[in-house]
Amino acid sequence: MTASAAAPAVPALQDSAFLRACRREPVPHTPVWFMRQAGRSLPEYRKVRAGVPMLEACWRPDLVTEITLQPVRRHGVDAAILFSDIVVPLKAVGVDLDIVPGVGPVVAEPIRTAADLDRLRPLEPDDVAAIAEAVRMTVAELGPVPLIGFAGAPFTLASYLVEGGPSRNHEHTKALMYGDPVLWDALMRRLAGITAAFLRAQIEAGVSAVQLFDSWVGALPATDYVRQVQPHSAAVLSAVGELGVPRIHFGVVTGELLGHMGDAGAEVVGVDFRLPLDEALQRIGPDRAVQGNLDPAALFAPWEAVAERTRAVLAAGRAAPGHIFNLGHGVIPETDPGVLTRVVDLVHEESAR
Amino acid sequence: MTASAAAPAVPALQDSAFLRACRREPVPHTPVWFMRQAGRSLPEYRKVRAGVPMLEACWRPDLVTEITLQPVRRHGVDAAILFSDIVVPLKAVGVDLDIVPGVGPVVAEPIRTAADLDRLRPLEPDDVAAIAEAVRMTVAELGPVPLIGFAGAPFTLASYLVEGGPSRNHEHTKALMYGDPVLWDALMRRLAGITAAFLRAQIEAGVSAVQLFDSWVGALPATDYVRQVQPHSAAVLSAVGELGVPRIHFGVVTGELLGHMGDAGAEVVGVDFRLPLDEALQRIGPDRAVQGNLDPAALFAPWEAVAERTRAVLAAGRAAPGHIFNLGHGVIPETDPGVLTRVVDLVHEESAR
Repeated sequence: MTASAAAPAVPALQDSAFLRACRREPVPHTPVWFMRQAGRSLPEYRKVRAGVPMLEACWRPDLVTEITLQPVRRHGVDAAILFSDIVVPLKAVGVDLDIVPGVGPVVAEPIRTAADLDRLRPLEPDDVAAIAEAVRMTVAELGPVPLIGFAGAPFTLASYLVEGGPSRNHEHTKALMYGDPVLWDALMRRLAGITAAFLRAQIEAGVSAVQLFDSWVGALPATDYVRQVQPHSAAVLSAVGELGVPRIHFGVVTGELLGHMGDAGAEVVGVDFRLPLDEALQRIGPDRAVQGNLDPAALFAPWEAVAERTRAVLAAGRAAPGHIFNLGHGVIPETDPGVLTRVVDLVHEESAR
Repeated sequence: MTASAAAPAVPALQDSAFLRACRREPVPHTPVWFMRQAGRSLPEYRKVRAGVPMLEACWRPDLVTEITLQPVRRHGVDAAILFSDIVVPLKAVGVDLDIVPGVGPVVAEPIRTAADLDRLRPLEPDDVAAIAEAVRMTVAELGPVPLIGFAGAPFTLASYLVEGGPSRNHEHTKALMYGDPVLWDALMRRLAGITAAFLRAQIEAGVSAVQLFDSWVGALPATDYVRQVQPHSAAVLSAVGELGVPRIHFGVVTGELLGHMGDAGAEVVGVDFRLPLDEALQRIGPDRAVQGNLDPAALFAPWEAVAERTRAVLAAGRAAPGHIFNLGHGVIPETDPGVLTRVVDLVHEESAR
């Protein structure tokens, strides 16, 4: 099956609950998907990943397709999200990095000087041909189920590059940001260009929406975010705006930043689990849909507690002009996948009433 | 020298800038100290700790005294904080745990059932006789410089005990909290009792103030905090209230919780670096002093950027009825201690104008 063979499915796809919610249109039920739904919580994922390094898996269209489809088959979620990693576009432009199990992305030579910027060339479509192929294959398999493309936002990518890996305090990143704003700006511009090109490649290959993840942005006070980060996230979102797919923007620990993240230009703002959706809405304003925000740790409680909290998220989301149910952060690897399936069913049942 | 021999110093001590700021009285200059000022950023600390495991060091009055004094000597800070660890009172009541370098506290058998609670007996003064002795020795050496005692708040202690060690998501803790609120309440009551007894022992031995740290509380939405955590933190603060020393309450990622943390009863609320002090004050209200909140990661920037941000914290703190300058989180071990000294000098100079 090719992407063009799937063309008859497009009307159903555009009419899906997920895309309707993104567009703030009435929905038959609240759509639901889970950040990191394709991943270690699923035994079928662990099986296909066995012996395959993470970055190798991201570049194999057959594996990407299979892994992306697994949670759709198992949970009946309303959207798939492309299996990939935040550092894929960096690897694609030749940055020497690897994903070390138990650690995360490790960059061989951190970027901290103007000369280091030369290692960040623009991303060309050919650099991510395998990812585009994976998108086409996955879209063909999904039929009327929307596929969400994704990319890490410039700040989060910058943190990995400047620190050389995951960081608790982001001290080298902040030292650069606060100490050399000109170099910081140049770095962020390059990353925004790479990120926009990566999202464009996914959209042109057929994803129905994109999510821009800014995992670490909650480490910043709002004033610094607005001055030194938001313009670059906005540039990414703006660069893909003409392509017409809904854009979701999410970060963790973003209570103070939500309004500004909404202003960056996405149609949907993802909300961290710390803030009820109705309060989040007051910060985001009425012109955006919201996505979230069940606490992924709450899934470890007995079912009745999970159900109560799921209902509370749905109730708070009713105030929104569009609500996509999700977790307030990614699925924790040790999560019982059976609980995720029950949450999908409960969201569908409760919201269809 | 004993605590009573230090009695002549008491008037100068009570008149110190730190204690005056805690009481919201006029100060000759803004007092400053740093969370984790006694620790790995200092070469003299690394020297005396060489070969001595963390928990052994916490139980040796000579080492505690020396380590507590080091940053006072080097930086000229306005207060010392007792060198200790959040798990010391748990170890004192017999919980089988250790502090593993590079990992943190590791609890041999996590506490997850009602039967497990039996391992948490009340803390008696004799259990922490060595810590009380360390307080007396340190107070005698410090003279007019106030010593701050400290303890971890019940939620943070509960997280270590229920998870069995440090945790990114606190999933077992939340599963217990949300799934078995009766057991959770019983656990938190025991921990509040242990914490209050530990702070009482420090106050009776001579500390001039106490700080109740709730390191992990920012992992909770405000509704859960108010219902299942705040009453127990309030119980700890209330239990030592009659002893008449100022109480400081601090947690990380607490933007949404600040007002409620203030309501828990401390005279001083510590503010995370994510929120400017003047905004924090609007949430805390006019009846508390504030402590904070220079970003510890910003100390890695060139001096001019550090100085600019230090001045911004002082400016925002002017709106407060009392301001104790501090970081918005602990000193990062790789921090250049020379920068900390310069920050102390700058705070004193700028605020004395």
